[in-house]
Amino acid sequence: MRTNYCGDLRGQHIGQTVTLYGWVDRRRDHGGVIFIDLRDRTGTVQIVSDPQRTPDSAENAHSLRSEYVVKVVGKVSQRPPESLNPKLPTGEIEIYADAIEVLNSVKKQLPFQVSTTEAENVREDLRLKYRYLDLRKERMSANLQLRHQVVKAIRHFLEDEQNFMEIETPILTRSTPEGARDYLVPSRVNPGEWYALPQSPQLFKQLLMVSGCDRYYQIARCFRDEDLRADRQPEFTQLDMEMSFMSQDEIIELNEALICHIFKVVKNIDLPRPFPRLTYAEAMDRYGSDRPDTRFDLELVDVSDIVQDSGFKVFSGAVASGGMVKVLPIPNGNDTISNVRIKPKGDLFEEAAAAGAKGIAYIRVREDNQIDTIGAIKDNLTEAQKEELLTKTKAKPGHLLLFGAGDTATVNKSLDRLRLLVGKELGLIDENKINLVWITQFPMFEWNADEKRLEALHHPFTAPYPEDIDNLKTARAQAYDLVYNGIEVGGGSLRIYQKDIQEKVFATIGLSTEEADNKFGFLLEAFEYGTPPHGGIAYGLDRLVMLLAGEESIRDVIAFPKTQQASCLLTDAPATVDKKQLQELYISSTYKPKQKEV
Amino acid sequence: MRTNYCGDLRGQHIGQTVTLYGWVDRRRDHGGVIFIDLRDRTGTVQIVSDPQRTPDSAENAHSLRSEYVVKVVGKVSQRPPESLNPKLPTGEIEIYADAIEVLNSVKKQLPFQVSTTEAENVREDLRLKYRYLDLRKERMSANLQLRHQVVKAIRHFLEDEQNFMEIETPILTRSTPEGARDYLVPSRVNPGEWYALPQSPQLFKQLLMVSGCDRYYQIARCFRDEDLRADRQPEFTQLDMEMSFMSQDEIIELNEALICHIFKVVKNIDLPRPFPRLTYAEAMDRYGSDRPDTRFDLELVDVSDIVQDSGFKVFSGAVASGGMVKVLPIPNGNDTISNVRIKPKGDLFEEAAAAGAKGIAYIRVREDNQIDTIGAIKDNLTEAQKEELLTKTKAKPGHLLLFGAGDTATVNKSLDRLRLLVGKELGLIDENKINLVWITQFPMFEWNADEKRLEALHHPFTAPYPEDIDNLKTARAQAYDLVYNGIEVGGGSLRIYQKDIQEKVFATIGLSTEEADNKFGFLLEAFEYGTPPHGGIAYGLDRLVMLLAGEESIRDVIAFPKTQQASCLLTDAPATVDKKQLQELYISSTYKPKQKEV
Repeated sequence: MRTNYCGDLRGQHIGQTVTLYGWVDRRRDHGGVIFIDLRDRTGTVQIVSDPQRTPDSAENAHSLRSEYVVKVVGKVSQRPPESLNPKLPTGEIEIYADAIEVLNSVKKQLPFQVSTTEAENVREDLRLKYRYLDLRKERMSANLQLRHQVVKAIRHFLEDEQNFMEIETPILTRSTPEGARDYLVPSRVNPGEWYALPQSPQLFKQLLMVSGCDRYYQIARCFRDEDLRADRQPEFTQLDMEMSFMSQDEIIELNEALICHIFKVVKNIDLPRPFPRLTYAEAMDRYGSDRPDTRFDLELVDVSDIVQDSGFKVFSGAVASGGMVKVLPIPNGNDTISNVRIKPKGDLFEEAAAAGAKGIAYIRVREDNQIDTIGAIKDNLTEAQKEELLTKTKAKPGHLLLFGAGDTATVNKSLDRLRLLVGKELGLIDENKINLVWITQFPMFEWNADEKRLEALHHPFTAPYPEDIDNLKTARAQAYDLVYNGIEVGGGSLRIYQKDIQEKVFATIGLSTEEADNKFGFLLEAFEYGTPPHGGIAYGLDRLVMLLAGEESIRDVIAFPKTQQASCLLTDAPATVDKKQLQELYISSTYKPKQKEV
Repeated sequence: MRTNYCGDLRGQHIGQTVTLYGWVDRRRDHGGVIFIDLRDRTGTVQIVSDPQRTPDSAENAHSLRSEYVVKVVGKVSQRPPESLNPKLPTGEIEIYADAIEVLNSVKKQLPFQVSTTEAENVREDLRLKYRYLDLRKERMSANLQLRHQVVKAIRHFLEDEQNFMEIETPILTRSTPEGARDYLVPSRVNPGEWYALPQSPQLFKQLLMVSGCDRYYQIARCFRDEDLRADRQPEFTQLDMEMSFMSQDEIIELNEALICHIFKVVKNIDLPRPFPRLTYAEAMDRYGSDRPDTRFDLELVDVSDIVQDSGFKVFSGAVASGGMVKVLPIPNGNDTISNVRIKPKGDLFEEAAAAGAKGIAYIRVREDNQIDTIGAIKDNLTEAQKEELLTKTKAKPGHLLLFGAGDTATVNKSLDRLRLLVGKELGLIDENKINLVWITQFPMFEWNADEKRLEALHHPFTAPYPEDIDNLKTARAQAYDLVYNGIEVGGGSLRIYQKDIQEKVFATIGLSTEEADNKFGFLLEAFEYGTPPHGGIAYGLDRLVMLLAGEESIRDVIAFPKTQQASCLLTDAPATVDKKQLQELYISSTYKPKQKEV
């Protein structure tokens, strides 16, 4: 039986005979004396097999190769002074191996090196195909252990300190597509009918509040059939919470305590509280985004009022047609950003264009506050306007002012992108900073131009501010997002708990009474049987752990992730299935693979 | 803000002003003084609204009806001696309500009474349709809380005492049907291909051992598209565990400690250890079942050797053709079980017939050990055989001996059923007993008569005993099931970790090399890169909680279960979906509903 883990051994164990299990991380032959770094989940320890001192283990020690699985029995010994390794937690000791047993060997060439000492940059497709080897690496093993610690900290806080109950909600449920596409599952027992995998446990957690569960949480698997982006997976994990009889402030405070607890437990960091809060309007105004990275300033300045009467039609026209003109002022931007980068084909231009902007106007502030720009702008600004511009944007000589002009959404989106790009390039972002910000008072709805209707900015179960209820279309929602260094990690709201308000919201997003009844009738009915005021929040657990791990992809904190093509390279899922399986389900594929060209 | 939960209030709180939230469990009007039982997740407390003493709350108190949602602010007071209620945890006190606020009312007639004082037996379909009301009831709320406590106890033991890491494995995975049917999910991004929902995380947890994770667990959702029985659900929850470098005995001991921990925490019961172990052969011999209810004796007796030469062809023929003759001896069975019940159309006959038996032979032992049975048996037994029979079955006057004769499987199955039926009827089962038994040394394979091939009794990743490996078809598996009062709650095994043995097992169950490579090639390949010896176990969490809760259906310990027709009566899943959704997935339904007869 194992007596110790490799990485746990210290000076205090010297003299003990230990039994270890693990993998050969590295093997070195120093003139007959074999040194083995033996690795398990906890770290590595040095094993010594010396033909003189431990002859019984010598033969097997010689046969070992990287990643062999071995059992070692030996004595913990002080390392000689010259081979102490203070960088290794076990670097004070080594194990003289009385016996080495090979439990399994490696029969094929490893697709990549696994050793903790290898920093080889392995192609991700290879890492995913041989995920079981990739997960042996220190970095990935640490990520999985961090994830475990985060979840454990969450459970401890919610269960032991806050009376939350963990309750499982169904994975096979009803399709209610809102926003993203559902994954569907054909029912064999009810042919012609389909389950859907949940995009979130939203309706069930609300029903649990109707059930009197009071405080619910779940580490919940969720599913969205989206066209995948870098930080998305077809299935992802959500910390899902819901609670009754609490105000928005109470919920926010409880969640700040939760987040602080996580940081304290897994990073030993005391976050200052309370977290800053920005209203949606303020965030959009200052950063052009509802998930601003507040680790650096570079705030946007709305100059619509200054240029609305300008002869430069790009500016005045934008304001006249209900849009705006906004400036991103960049200190010392003149030195760092050339005109080429701002003009068509330049990287800043492309960045803004990707957000829908047609171009970037700019002003360079020279000595004595002279402005340097194209004639059409310069000639159309009065001295008073110039001065007002420089004052409002706090521009000084050396400043580069980048302008967005057009509809509000596009201006904000493009300047937000420019702000992030420039902030990164100019080294304005302190990577050690941890900025957590609540965004509040979101609008209830946003305009979906494609479908020509309002849609819920969060989801249609979000409660409006009571004072805004008479003007529902422009009402603010009692919703709150938590943004961590510019990335949304959580979002929640107070929920509607009255049937008439819920019906009004459904009507506002264009859901007919019949559709609403068909899709959400059970919820509307539940509201009539004593539903408590309630609210909740959900965190993207993968994303939160990714940020805590300092990784840039959620794939690096998921044991068996899928690629951006939604495939598992290890098991080769999805795959074709037996015809018989489809027949039993009463379904067939209508997909006709394109014929190869002759 | 809430100051207390209702059920937590005690004498120590007398004099405090508290703010409570909850539901009106009951309201009584005693000549103008209103008494309200206010209920939340923790229990109920009595609220008093007295027009004299607390006039401000009187009006609202009058308007209250069952299941209204209210906020109460009031003072905790000692109850007068005559209204103390020692049966209620809060029965020493009551709250004089300074203010009662109605947060939500009940607008429709309740489909059934929710109050804790109601013992009404509600139809299950109604309970499932209004699950949010059903879950308010004391029994269901207690079940969910018990489930939460069980999972919490599991996590504490595995994480804090045993170094297990919780790791999530995919829900969208590859179809590898073995045994049960898979639920399939069409892929939109990879048209014509399908994910499957996992029947268990078996392959992933083994790969995690290859990854060096050492000790893994997960509260894992699993899916089986079966024709449902009373205790099955399309989706169910499994406590899934896997560990490296441990022997079968070490795994069993760790699991006994886990089970004992659960019982101690949630029931305050100290289970005796070690749990008894029965080999599969012994269990089949003595109980005719590999999940015997050992709370009562009534053991089966194999009498094949005694009757193999009998002139009664039913007996001798059964033995001659490789089957057996076995007896269920029932003390005092003569008084309690009539011939009518044993003969065709009798309940015992039907029970045996349901297991495939053609009939039940019997012998009644009368005074002086005279036997009373049909002539064909009596006339064909010698005195010596009779005596041997009575001796071996330990029969005494008053005993009824029920015989099973035929192939071994049918004999065991039918006598097992009779044993359970009779044991229950005769009151031999002590419902307070908790018998946990390990069943070990299962056969690796059993014969599938339909498919005319051997199939894995557990699953094809189970390791055979090393000494049996040369006769794989009859080898014993290093597998172990945990049986709790006759119900299998867990099952596991050591796994194969060598490619050649895994290939032999695949070949034995009739999987061609090509099929094996296609389905499990990634596992076979993983075995070549340093796979540690490993083993694991999985528990049916729903079933375990059901037993701990004293419930008879797993539906009563699942928040939102499905019916036996695999439907959710609350959300009406599964349901038809938009044509557009199916088109996007490149699938269509081939189901043609039968036309109604004219």
